[in-house]
This record gives sequence, structure tokens and C-alpha cells, in this order.
Amino acid sequence: MKLAIYGYGNLGRGVECAVTQNPDAELTAVFTRRDPESVKTLTGVPVYSAESILDFKDKIDVLIICGGSATDLPKMTPYLAAHFNVVDSFDTHAKIPSHFENVNKAALENGNIALISAGWDPGMFSIARVYASSILPDGKDYTFWGRGVSQGHSDAVRRIDGVIDARQYTVPVPEAVDAVRQGLCPELTTRQKHTRECFVVAEEGADKQRIENEIKTMPNYFSDYDTTVTFISAEEMKEKHSALPHGGSVIRTGKTGLSKENSHVIEYSLKLDSNPQFTSSALVAFARAIFRMRARGETGCKTVLDIAPADLSPLSGDQLRAHML
Amino acid sequence: MKLAIYGYGNLGRGVECAVTQNPDAELTAVFTRRDPESVKTLTGVPVYSAESILDFKDKIDVLIICGGSATDLPKMTPYLAAHFNVVDSFDTHAKIPSHFENVNKAALENGNIALISAGWDPGMFSIARVYASSILPDGKDYTFWGRGVSQGHSDAVRRIDGVIDARQYTVPVPEAVDAVRQGLCPELTTRQKHTRECFVVAEEGADKQRIENEIKTMPNYFSDYDTTVTFISAEEMKEKHSALPHGGSVIRTGKTGLSKENSHVIEYSLKLDSNPQFTSSALVAFARAIFRMRARGETGCKTVLDIAPADLSPLSGDQLRAHML
Repeated sequence: MKLAIYGYGNLGRGVECAVTQNPDAELTAVFTRRDPESVKTLTGVPVYSAESILDFKDKIDVLIICGGSATDLPKMTPYLAAHFNVVDSFDTHAKIPSHFENVNKAALENGNIALISAGWDPGMFSIARVYASSILPDGKDYTFWGRGVSQGHSDAVRRIDGVIDARQYTVPVPEAVDAVRQGLCPELTTRQKHTRECFVVAEEGADKQRIENEIKTMPNYFSDYDTTVTFISAEEMKEKHSALPHGGSVIRTGKTGLSKENSHVIEYSLKLDSNPQFTSSALVAFARAIFRMRARGETGCKTVLDIAPADLSPLSGDQLRAHML
Repeated sequence: MKLAIYGYGNLGRGVECAVTQNPDAELTAVFTRRDPESVKTLTGVPVYSAESILDFKDKIDVLIICGGSATDLPKMTPYLAAHFNVVDSFDTHAKIPSHFENVNKAALENGNIALISAGWDPGMFSIARVYASSILPDGKDYTFWGRGVSQGHSDAVRRIDGVIDARQYTVPVPEAVDAVRQGLCPELTTRQKHTRECFVVAEEGADKQRIENEIKTMPNYFSDYDTTVTFISAEEMKEKHSALPHGGSVIRTGKTGLSKENSHVIEYSLKLDSNPQFTSSALVAFARAIFRMRARGETGCKTVLDIAPADLSPLSGDQLRAHML
């Protein structure tokens, strides 16, 4: 299958790397909104202007859209789904239904197929929630994130006056995770589930007390959490906080038996050195599924919940049954 | 959807309980090879002779076959797939390809749909292996079972002369699990992955040393493992070892990045109070998927790898996207 990347940041570079691990996939082009001359790809794949994308209509089986969820994808994915089979990693949970409608309309009207919100949450965590709740209907599930870097929270801290750079780690509270794993079904407040750790490089002479206070009282981002703020040097930031690790767990506990006499715990966990590279690897696997489903005549917008696991694998049905089942 | 149970042992009773947790499912009948008069169901569902099953051809949407994998299912599932849409939990890994062929032929020829090998391994663990290996192609996966009762190994011990009752627990080696979780990709022998714990009730005056020796040297079952044997009373067996707990983990570690610079760990774990009740709960969820797929016109044999997660859930696509994605 011939893939192409639309948008060449962390995620796009991750897709480029992931394609090298999948022998049935070939990367034909990278599209950028920057000057193509200024962009050099990791593997030498040719770079074209995003404006020229429609010239490639018959040369791409699946276009992987690597834009941001805030402003890029709500416009890009419906537009591109009118011309290509596409995959994106749209991750604004509350806006998924409207994004789905827009993409579905564009894809259906033009006989294309699209998959939105691939990645890990939404993505693999969503899949874990649906399997677990379908098998254990009488239960409760919990999602914990971290320890990992939240880019949205890091950006929020960076916008504070006097802050040069910042990195925010989301950390699950170990006691809460343990209580859930034991099947105690605790009622947990936002504060009881996660803590937030901020590492901040401040301008020389900045009022650190004020910065710390502004962080800890910031509504939506920090005020509902126990937050720690640590001021560090630019050197330490570069040395210890350059990576983008993340992960977490989806845990569902449920009862079975006529008098609910048996308890069960299902847990799906991820520990990722690189959040964008894992998401990119998922994008490529879901691109394979979309490619196959289109070949079977399917069109319209799908989500990861609509994809059978077998369609993600390079192995045949016979191979899967003999070796993986 | 109208469900029925064929075979009423631990698994069949588990399905009966699971149906009560799924408001969109109705249990219409239980079929038994015993005298139906001698069987009383937990919820009052009527019991019929297995021989009368063909009289119910138009009254059952999906028939859940609750037989043993050794001798029952290889005959039952192909026979019944010729007349009904069916689900089974066939778990002899090595014989899945031939079972699939037989069931597929019967189902296709008669316009029915069948799903084989639902449960947790094969089943949810198979699904975990396929997702993880598709997303992280450059990696290695490990499956650990336990701590839990292996019924096959318990039966093997019971067949030894002088043994009245026995229970065998499969136990993963903690150091091996830790090494895998750390991404060390260890090469592990059978002995390094699991130990086996046997609890045995011996006849009065039996030669315990001989029994212990026969267990520990039994080929295929115990000779490749470090095994402990503990003799206990019949009372202690009943009190402490009546349940059928099980579980385990599928862990895949893999690398991403052009120079494989990032490591990732994906883990799917189960901790089950009752192995048969969890399997039963999975059977009902997969029956829902089969029912829907048949309504869309699909026929032939499927496995859990062919089922999209959304088809397992009672929620609609809109509900799933709004609340679960």
C-alpha cells in the first residue's frame, strides 16, 4: 500500500519511521505547509507543498494526516477525505461526534473511507474500554494517565509571564491505582486520581513565587490537582526533560455470577518512551486496515472501534489462526 | 436476541448468569445430553434433550455451545453450525485451523455464521497479541498464565494411583515477568516462565513419596517445570481450593524510531475469580457480534480476531463515539 504524510512535525516524522518497520507499506510523499525546499525528511522521501496535494489523487492509497487537533484536523480531515482515503489522530474527546459527522459526510459523498482518532487515548484505550465493558457489563472502569508529559499543560505553563520553558508530567496516584486493581471500586475525585509535576525554567529575576502561584491556581489545568513546581536551569531541562514519554492504564473491575459472587479485573497498560512515535505506529497499522476495508468496498468514516483486529495485522487469516489465536 | 445453551456444565451455567447482565439478550432454552428431567437451571430456563435441538431451528438467533474441547466441540460445532448460528470456546490451540475449516464449511454451505474460540486464551489474549504486534512490529511478546487452576493438569494428577483429589496452580515466575516488563526481551525456557503448585488428597496409607515423584516426572505436564507437591486433607481441599481462579498477562515490548531509540511496553492482564464465568461472559458478548453480523448478511466461520470491538457492545455507534472513544 502506498502511504503519504500530510504535515511533518513530531507525528509525521514518527509515521515516516513506522513505515520502515512495515514491509507492506511504502511512503510515497510528505506534504508540508512550509516551503518544501526547507524540509528534509529522515529517509529521503520527497517533500511537496500541501497546496499540490490534489495532483496526487491517484498515487496515494491512504493519506495519514499529521496535524494538531485544536485547529488543523477539524478542517484538514473533512477536506482531504473528499479526495483521499485518510487516517487522523484527532484527540479532542468532546468534539469527536461532530468531527465524525463532518468527515463521514465528505468521505461518503466521494466514495472514500476515513478513520479518525487513532492513537492511544482516543485509540487503544478506547478499544480496551469497549472490550472490557462488553464482557463485564456489571462493573466500573477507570483510566489513569502517566507518568508522562502533557503537551497541553506544558504549553499552558509556558504562556505564564516570566516562564522561558516548562514541562508538565501527569502522574497517577499509586494508592488510587492499587485500590482500583483490588476491585474496591472507589469513588475518586480528580485530585485523588492524578497529581501534576511542573519543571520550569524562569527568566532571570522573575518572581518565582508568583509563577508557582499562577500555575497552581490555573483553572481547568491545575486548580483541581495537587501540583508541585520545581524551578530548574535551561541545561537541566534539555538534559533530563527532552523526551516525550507517556502511558497509563485502563482498568475495569466487574462482577459475575447470579449473586455477583465472583470479581474480575481487566487491565490494559501502556508505558511509552515516545508518545508521538507510538501514536504514529498506531496510525500506520490503522492505515493498513482502512486500505483493506476500502478494497472490500467500504466507505465513510470509521473509528478504531469499527476495525477488526485481523485487519491491522500484516499476517493472513490462516497465519493468524495458526500462530496468534 | 434469542440465545440458547447447548451443554449445561460450569460453562453453560456461566452463560446463563451472564445473560442476566445483558438486557438485550434472552435465554430461551438449555439443551442437555442428560435426562432433561434431572437438570434444574439456575434461573428457571426450560431444559430440553439435546436430541430435540433441530425442532428449535427458527426459535434461536445464536446457539452457545458449552462442550469440552477434547472430544465434544470438534463434532458438535460443525454439526450445529449447519443448522444454527453458533459460538464456541474451542481452546486446543494446535487444532484451531482444522476446527475452523470444518466449522467454516458447515456454516457457509448452510448460510449460517459461527464464531470459534471465544474466551480469554484463545480469546482476549489472542486479540491483545494481534493489536500489540501490529502496532509494534519490531518487538517480542510473552504470555504468562496464572496464578490459576489448570483443569488439565489437575486431572492428570487425579489419574495417579492413590490420589483421591488434586488441584494444580500454574504460577508465573515473578522475576521473568519483571524482566519482560522492563523491556529486557529475555530468552526464557519453559522452566523459567512458570512454576506449578499441586495440592493433593491421598488415600490413607498411600506412598506419598511415590505420588510426588510420579507428578514431578510426568512428561509434558510437569517434567519441564519446577513443581511443588503439598498433601492436604479433603476438608482443606474443599475449604481452600474449590474455586477456579485464573488469569495472566500478555506483554509485548517493542522499539520505534529510525535507530530504534525508543522502547514501549504494552500489557494486557486478567485477574479472574472464576475462569468459566469469565469465558461465559465473553461468549455472550461475542454472540451479540455474531447476531449483528448475520443480520448484515455475513456467513461462515469467524474468530475473535474478525470482530470489530463496536459489535460486542450494546451501545450504538453514536453512544460509543460520544462516551467510550
